[in-house]
Amino acid sequence: MDEQEIRSIVDQVTRELGGSPRNITLSEAQTLSSAVHAKAKEMGVKAVVAVSNRAAQPPILVECADDSYIASYDVAVQKAFTVVSLKMSTSELKPLAQPGGPLYGIQFTNQGKIVIFGGGEPLCDKQGNIIGGLGVSGGSEEQDTALAAYGKKFFENL
Amino acid sequence: MDEQEIRSIVDQVTRELGGSPRNITLSEAQTLSSAVHAKAKEMGVKAVVAVSNRAAQPPILVECADDSYIASYDVAVQKAFTVVSLKMSTSELKPLAQPGGPLYGIQFTNQGKIVIFGGGEPLCDKQGNIIGGLGVSGGSEEQDTALAAYGKKFFENL
Amino acid sequence: MDEQEIRSIVDQVTRELGGSPRNITLSEAQTLSSAVHAKAKEMGVKAVVAVSNRAAQPPILVECADDSYIASYDVAVQKAFTVVSLKMSTSELKPLAQPGGPLYGIQFTNQGKIVIFGGGEPLCDKQGNIIGGLGVSGGSEEQDTALAAYGKKFFENL
Amino acid sequence: MDEQEIRSIVDQVTRELGGSPRNITLSEAQTLSSAVHAKAKEMGVKAVVAVSNRAAQPPILVECADDSYIASYDVAVQKAFTVVSLKMSTSELKPLAQPGGPLYGIQFTNQGKIVIFGGGEPLCDKQGNIIGGLGVSGGSEEQDTALAAYGKKFFENL
Repeated sequence: MDEQEIRSIVDQVTRELGGSPRNITLSEAQTLSSAVHAKAKEMGVKAVVAVSNRAAQPPILVECADDSYIASYDVAVQKAFTVVSLKMSTSELKPLAQPGGPLYGIQFTNQGKIVIFGGGEPLCDKQGNIIGGLGVSGGSEEQDTALAAYGKKFFENL
Repeated sequence: MDEQEIRSIVDQVTRELGGSPRNITLSEAQTLSSAVHAKAKEMGVKAVVAVSNRAAQPPILVECADDSYIASYDVAVQKAFTVVSLKMSTSELKPLAQPGGPLYGIQFTNQGKIVIFGGGEPLCDKQGNIIGGLGVSGGSEEQDTALAAYGKKFFENL
Repeated sequence: MDEQEIRSIVDQVTRELGGSPRNITLSEAQTLSSAVHAKAKEMGVKAVVAVSNRAAQPPILVECADDSYIASYDVAVQKAFTVVSLKMSTSELKPLAQPGGPLYGIQFTNQGKIVIFGGGEPLCDKQGNIIGGLGVSGGSEEQDTALAAYGKKFFENL
Repeated sequence: MDEQEIRSIVDQVTRELGGSPRNITLSEAQTLSSAVHAKAKEMGVKAVVAVSNRAAQPPILVECADDSYIASYDVAVQKAFTVVSLKMSTSELKPLAQPGGPLYGIQFTNQGKIVIFGGGEPLCDKQGNIIGGLGVSGGSEEQDTALAAYGKKFFENL
């Protein structure tokens, strides 16, 4: 049995017996961040990539491409926080938090840590439990959204 | 005479003599929180329940259901703050704080502690004085609003 | 097999296979808080009790005795944060953070969330893993330290 | 000519022409962090490693070993900030910031971002210009100090 198989069994047993899902590891976060940075480079985006574990904060990894936006550090970190703490992507949250929407105002009530535009995706284990969060910032919203979606998929195929 | 009757008389005398209304007690807050959590469970919501006294902050009780949203802690606590500090439910505040509304901007002027969506209700004594506030977060806005309304009614029938 | 036995096996298997230890539950936190509040009352202390899970923040339960110090809310919450985030009691941290000590200054570097006087204790499962943290504030340092130690022991005998 | 030789020539020319020294790159920060994490593992320390560039904040890389102290994130990040913003190691700053010392109080004047115990080292280019900063947290002060010194040396031999 390799590490992946063992982890999969642990996940399943833990889940059946009511324990906590595992956390994403630093090693997985590094692999994920490298993949997202490679994709970003391909797209011409200087990205900041942040990865949180199930605790949502602080992140376990942040990597800023050379010459990326200084503001992107906070944005990427808070995207990773947002997706774990609300269990949804920042794209899904976006319409809910517009003026008139059911959650309009949530962007102000958590010390500014809730990001309401694309670029954040929860990261799940094989059983669908959220075990971490990915935040990407540095391009247009469309690019950040695409990069986070790419990262989510990449991670789930690891 | 039981505890409830004595309290009621004290409230009335205090009021007649020009004193402050009493504060909600921890014991009452615990009873209220248990009732709201039971209702939330029934509705399939993993709720965070916060109760403030007349000082609005900090809360006197916060209880987070297992696996509830991490972001719900701040939201519930700030809902309890909002209703006591503005003497209205967060649902009543909501339309006033939309862009173009008379209080648009209040969500920025109190260090992000004013919540402008449903799930917060003031808690009153028999004479209608606000003696505390309830904040609920964890479901959809509709669910949180229903749970806070349920809690308000439950409290007032204690 | 009762719940406790199942949980114990899950903990052990999880641990052996490299998974995360479980988190303290709200139900356990309530039982613990009640016990600490009862003891505090016996000692004439109006206590604030806070309990964190393995994520350290936000807490999963806070309960403030009637007429307790307003300042104790933050102190209790940050004690619970401190013990999980540094994996030691606040009493153990105390000497390290005095002027001239190896960690002098840590009280300033985490947004004021590190408490360096007694009243915070980590909460462990049967295998010795930290699964939560307890913060108590409201009495003298000696009283808070005694109450937190009492709570730790109470929890570990649950 | 390899990348290192080209960079060295660019540095020299830039310097002669009155330009700013270059910044540490993400790629260099990753290499450095891997080396420090490997050393930390050897020493039995679960480390958080943060690297800043010449702007001091935000960091360009943060990596948290699995199960490292939650509090170490802020400490490592602020160590990296401190060494670039004050152009000295946190060990050199330590005696200056003790009560009675010439800089006592600096730990309060920068929003808590100045760390005054060991584990932070400036990173220099071949000409001795500071081009980044390294912050390590997770072990005892002695261990963090040793790891940061190791990292500084490793970087300067790259």
